[in-house]
Parts: sequence; C-alpha cells; structure tokens
Amino acid sequence: MDRTNRAAVLNETHDPTARSLVQSANDDAAFPIQNLPFGVFRENLGARSRIGIAIGNCVLDLSAIWRKGLLSDLADLVPAILAPNLHKLMERGQQDTSRIRHRLFKLLRDTNPAPRLVLDCLLPVNEVEMLLPCPIGNFTDFFTSIHHARRTGELARPGNPLFPNFKSLPVAYHGRASSVVVSGTPCIRPRGQLGAPEGQSRYQPSRRVDFELELGCFIHSGNRLGSPISMDAVEEFVFGVCLVNDWSARDIQRWESQPLGPFLAKSFMTSISPWVVTLEALAPFRIPPAQREPDDPPLAKELCADWHNATGGIDISFEVLLSTREMRSRAMEARPITRTAFREQYWSLFQMIVHHTSNGCNLQAGDLIASGTISGADPRESGCLLELTQGGQPSVELPTGEKRGYLEDGDCVTFEAICQRDGFRSIGLGSVTGRVAPRSGE
Amino acid sequence: MDRTNRAAVLNETHDPTARSLVQSANDDAAFPIQNLPFGVFRENLGARSRIGIAIGNCVLDLSAIWRKGLLSDLADLVPAILAPNLHKLMERGQQDTSRIRHRLFKLLRDTNPAPRLVLDCLLPVNEVEMLLPCPIGNFTDFFTSIHHARRTGELARPGNPLFPNFKSLPVAYHGRASSVVVSGTPCIRPRGQLGAPEGQSRYQPSRRVDFELELGCFIHSGNRLGSPISMDAVEEFVFGVCLVNDWSARDIQRWESQPLGPFLAKSFMTSISPWVVTLEALAPFRIPPAQREPDDPPLAKELCADWHNATGGIDISFEVLLSTREMRSRAMEARPITRTAFREQYWSLFQMIVHHTSNGCNLQAGDLIASGTISGADPRESGCLLELTQGGQPSVELPTGEKRGYLEDGDCVTFEAICQRDGFRSIGLGSVTGRVAPRSGE
Repeated sequence: MDRTNRAAVLNETHDPTARSLVQSANDDAAFPIQNLPFGVFRENLGARSRIGIAIGNCVLDLSAIWRKGLLSDLADLVPAILAPNLHKLMERGQQDTSRIRHRLFKLLRDTNPAPRLVLDCLLPVNEVEMLLPCPIGNFTDFFTSIHHARRTGELARPGNPLFPNFKSLPVAYHGRASSVVVSGTPCIRPRGQLGAPEGQSRYQPSRRVDFELELGCFIHSGNRLGSPISMDAVEEFVFGVCLVNDWSARDIQRWESQPLGPFLAKSFMTSISPWVVTLEALAPFRIPPAQREPDDPPLAKELCADWHNATGGIDISFEVLLSTREMRSRAMEARPITRTAFREQYWSLFQMIVHHTSNGCNLQAGDLIASGTISGADPRESGCLLELTQGGQPSVELPTGEKRGYLEDGDCVTFEAICQRDGFRSIGLGSVTGRVAPRSGE
Repeated sequence: MDRTNRAAVLNETHDPTARSLVQSANDDAAFPIQNLPFGVFRENLGARSRIGIAIGNCVLDLSAIWRKGLLSDLADLVPAILAPNLHKLMERGQQDTSRIRHRLFKLLRDTNPAPRLVLDCLLPVNEVEMLLPCPIGNFTDFFTSIHHARRTGELARPGNPLFPNFKSLPVAYHGRASSVVVSGTPCIRPRGQLGAPEGQSRYQPSRRVDFELELGCFIHSGNRLGSPISMDAVEEFVFGVCLVNDWSARDIQRWESQPLGPFLAKSFMTSISPWVVTLEALAPFRIPPAQREPDDPPLAKELCADWHNATGGIDISFEVLLSTREMRSRAMEARPITRTAFREQYWSLFQMIVHHTSNGCNLQAGDLIASGTISGADPRESGCLLELTQGGQPSVELPTGEKRGYLEDGDCVTFEAICQRDGFRSIGLGSVTGRVAPRSGE
C-alpha cells in the first residue's frame, strides 16, 4: 500500500451526498453521517458506561448494535466494542477503527433496508451523561502557535518575543493527566502562591484564571520505549482529535514556573470535549502545513516527509464563547470572543508526535497530546485572555456592559469547532464547556 | 487518636531486638524483619506477577502465604493481596498496609511456632524477576535540594543561582509516567536536538547523559479534584518510598527547556528501585526537617504543622556507584562517586504533597512523586554529574585511570540507600541500577 497520504485518502464514508436514516444528522452541523465520532456515555449515575457514536442529536449505542447482531463481521473487536471506555479500541490499530466506521456508515445510511434495528439503538444525546473517552494515560501539552508565542512573548520580553528554539522544534511540557475532565465539569478557582508583589508565601485564590483553546489528539496503539515513531508511520498513531480547554492561572504560573515550567498553574483542571473525531473522518480537511517563514532555520529531516508537505495540516475552525452570570440572568446568549483556526499552527500534530518520541519516549494508547493555545495572526484571533486582553486589561466587552480581563466566578467558557471545505459535508468536533466556580467557603 | 506524629509512632515492628526465622534477614543490611518493603515479582517471563515482601535475601510470596491460610484475619484485603501489582493496596488506606505489616512481622519473627509454613513461601530474590510496583499514574518531579539548586544555578547564572521562588514553595514539574521503568532496564542513549552551537535542527545522540539521585514516594488512596490535602492529613497519603534515577540529557535539556521546562531531556527513561519501604517502617528515622536559613521568607502557614517541626524530615543516606565497561572487564568493583543524605532537603516530602494539591489537583493511588536531585552542602555530596563535574569537566576519576564528565556507553550507575539511627535496626531501600547503552545501529 502506498504510504503517501494513506490516512488522508477519501473513501465512500466521505461521500458528501450520503444521507442518514437518522433525520437530525442530515441537518446537523457537527455530527452528520460523514463524521461518526466515538465517545463514552452512561444513561444515569449508576449505569455502566458504554461506547457510543454521535449521529445528529443522538448517540448510537454500540453495545446495543452488537446485541442486535449487526456487527457480526467484527467479532474479533467485541472486547473493544463492549468495553466501558475507548482504551481497548485505542490499543488496536487504525484499521480496526476504520472497519467499525465503515460498518456503522452502512448501518446508519438511509439506504439501509432494515432501519428499525438501528433506530432502536439510538438515545437522545441530551438524555445521557457523556464521560471521559478513556482513562488518560499521559497528557502532553505543546506550544506550537507562533502567533500565541509571539504575543505572549512580547508581553514578557518586549522586542524579543520568540525563544531561539521555537522554530527548530515543537516545544512542549508534560501536563497533569489525573485532572483531565470531561466537558461540563465546573472549574473550581484554584488557590496558590501568587508571587512576590502579592505576598510571596500566602496561598490565595488566583485572580487571573484564563482559558486556553487547544486541539487534543488521542494516541492509537503506541510505540515501545527506545523506538521512535517516524514521519513515515506517524499517521497510524493518531486515533482522533477533540477540543481541549487548558485552564490556566496566570498569577500562579508567573511565580512558580522558573526554572521547570508550569505546574500548579495548569494542573487544577483541563477540560476536553466528549467526542473523538477520527483521523479518517478528517481526511477531506487535510491541507498543506503552515508555510515556514523565509528566514526560518532548516527543518530537521526527521520532521519532514513528502506526504506531510501535501497533507500535514488539518483545517479546523474554532470559536470561543463566553457567558457571564449576568448575561444568563438576562437570558442573553453566549458571546463569541474569538474565532481562529488550526491551519496556521507552526508545527503539525504529526510533527509533535514524531518529536515527542525522537528521544525514545514511549507513547501509549489513551495518551492525550494537545497543541497548545491556537491563535491566529490577528490579535482578535487569540486563543486565550492573556493575549486577547494584553495581560488582563479589562478589554473584552460583553453585551451587558461587563468587561473582562480574566475570568470571574460564574463565567462559562465554551469552545466549538468545525471543519468545512467546498464539495464536502462539514463535520464538527462538538463543544467543550466549563464554568468557573469559587471553592466552597470562598 | 492524636494526629501528632501518628505515622512516626514506634510500635513492636520497630523493636531492634526482633529477629527473623529467615536467617539471612538477621545479617542483612537492607531487609531485616523491621523493614518488610512491598514489591512485585514473577518467577519467569510467562508467569503471573505477584506481590512479595523482601526479607533478607528472599522474597516472601504473599499469594502463597494466603493459600497457607496464614492471612485469614485479613480476608477483606484479599483482592489487594492477590492482585498482580500494588495498585489495589495503594488505593486502600495506611491502616490496611499496617495490618499486613504487623501480621507478616509476627509470621516472620523467630518466635513463630510454625516456621515451616512460612519458609515454604520464600523464594531466593536472585531467582525471581522484579517488576514495577504498580502502573505509574502520574509522575511528578520536584526540585527541593537547595544545594543542588545553588550549584546548578551557579553554573547557569553565576552570582545569582537561586530563583526567587525557591524558598517560598517547592518547585516541581510533571514528569513522564510511561517511561518509568524498574531497576535493571538498560538506558538507551537518547537522540535529540542539542542546540544552536551543535547544529540546531539535527537530531543526534546526546553527549551529556547524566543521572539524578532522587527519593521517590508512592501515594496512598488519593484526594478528590478540588480538595487539597492539609499538613494535618498528609502522612496518610504516603504509601512508601523508593529510589529514583531521573536520567537526564543535559544538552537536550538546555536547548528545549525555554519556556516550559524539561521535556525530552527526561522522558526517555526514569528508573526506580523495586522495593517500596512503607512510611511505618521509616518511623524510627523521622527527624526535624532541615533548618530554614535566618533570612528566609516566611513559610506559608499551609506548609507548617507542629508535628512537622518535630518529624517532618526522614534521615536516609545515599551512595552513588559507577562502574565502567573497562572496570568490569578488569573485575573491579563499582566505585562510589557520591555519598549524600536526604536530611538537608529544603522541602520535606510532606510539604511537596501539600503544595502539589494546594490548587485542587487530585493525587491518585500509584502516583509517583520524586524529590528532585538530592545533594549535600559539600560539592562531593552532589547527586548528579552536572554538579560533580561542574558542567561536564572530565573530573570524576576511576580506578582504571578513566575520567568522566558525563556518562559513556557501558557505564553502569547504581544508587543505594540506608536508614541508620542509634538504638534501632538499620533498614535499606535496596538499589536501583541501569547501564547506558547506544541505540542499536549507533
């Protein structure tokens, strides 16, 4: 099989004319039959968690589909399909995920001669609880938007914003895996030491809670310790993508980060969207990676590949919405405060993974890799308040007349993302949302 | 129950006159009956892993002891005792670990009237394979030796070695959990980008591979997200300690670390010793924490406690041994190159844990927390080559006439640790060892 663009090759599941027997899917902006993202849900608090697929405004219950005998040609995948989360499926390879996708595409298409059997396995998405897709093994957070690096760097080091390594390698740090939570979990305002001017040694509630808009990627199968992943093979290691809000406490971060980087400024919580959109679903939206600038240092050959020059990028557009307690009390809709895109990211998801394993580090199924804040060239396309407000100036204006520098208690932040391309059906990543809350007693 | 020093209270298991029916334990420097550390072993490659206890030069097989009916009063702990690793036991509380310790102490003591039943459950430690104590959830690495901070800081910023936060909080970063391995695993020399002077964008084998001598701590039970652990409760969250070698590639580290800290410079591998010495076993060796210096900033009240003033420290002495290929070919013993101690660590294990959760971050059973490099006031007490050789000068002299700045292929690094105190039986942590090897093809 030709290695070139294998994961970017189009097939019948990308056919823009395909319609689903689930009517809501045919009008849905995020979850038409061309998407079919994987997630984990339960029907109520005591119920066992199960794997589902988003289709329109419904969840297709994979366990139920199996019990109906509709997956009999996938018998070897039963332990993964009936598992309480996606970890076993992530341990397998991309071919297996693709077999499930193709089978479900046939079942959910409006050409299915026995639609009743499938319709019986649907649950309204607003009647189930979505859970984390899998236990998060390791969480790695990159720093790959040159616009984010420049604007935040300019605040800290005017005139000298980019560190010398930025254009040579995708910078990253290890994040905290235990505090990755699913969309909807309240974000308890963290306490911490806020630095010398504010009293070095007292722990107090952070005054500079921020969001960071990021793209997350779940790892398929993994590599052995000591065996790096090459650009030639890297696509096989991408299970799929989700939205990530890497909540950050800027005052804690500034004081604690020398010399080892962010720690408690990030580890209080990281939120992800519940649906994982597979790399195969993203095939129509693969584009060339961002152009390097003329005076950039030479790119390491380990981070290059012919296929990558053609399809190393992924075209995903994002929107960040903010709603305050006051806005909700006046029944106002959440206000978009940023629109940006992944296409300008200086390093691609694939380069992040290859660099990550270049030292022999082993990635494992269920690991989460995030892109770092996604910001565009225009300051209005900034993926965090630190940039949008130039360090916390109360400059984000809301329809109530309220202004925001950083987040206040009650503020609800929502990210949404969509992939669009002429001649193809759009697909979405869904949303990740979270509301800032005071710690009880504060 | 009085909270003061609960975990530091002495009981019959610390009786220095107690002797074991396992003769080798009575002469053993590390594993007498007063120690009883937990580990995980298997008899051969295909065998199921089981929990064992180190006693002298043997492993006591807990599954076998259970089958003999000798743990019938611990029936509620069977799922933890028969588990393939220590995770289930770590999920329980300190009381349960203590019940097992007290039961085994009675069984292994030379006053046991039925020694045969116990002796049947012993295996020579050199005939089994030791494994990781549990799957590592999250790995957090601190930076808590002021001598290490000063000496490495002096190399990077002469005259201004300590960052302003060092004396206000225990600095840390998230480490990579997937590449934590058990003692004996070869350390494959990592490749990486080594920075501008050496060719910014080429990946090549690191020339500056170093060890870092650290103390590790496994977490008991854990806390909920948003609920910090207080100094009053923190001892209950310590399962036990082990040795950690946080292998580091100094050239990769220097180039990649801005602004987010070390990443690939550390994640290629971290080695730990196989035996976990419980906090209860360490009770005789609890001492006051290191003295703060007269001009230190005030300590946050959240990091203070009366009991901590008396027993917040742990007195553990360490030795680092180096053996080269040449030394082994001439049948020379490994050479001690550092002797140091944990007693001068600026922040205690307990303060590290309390600070770690101060923002609401949740710790989980099986998480590994490491102290950062342990270095004493004298430069000869340095816990890494970066310090010992002042940045890689070939100044460590070996009996073959070889000199070392950083580690060369074939070099074997071993850490050993022991706790000693007048009037008490010494106990050891065992050892962690690893040999640097080139990647195949290099």
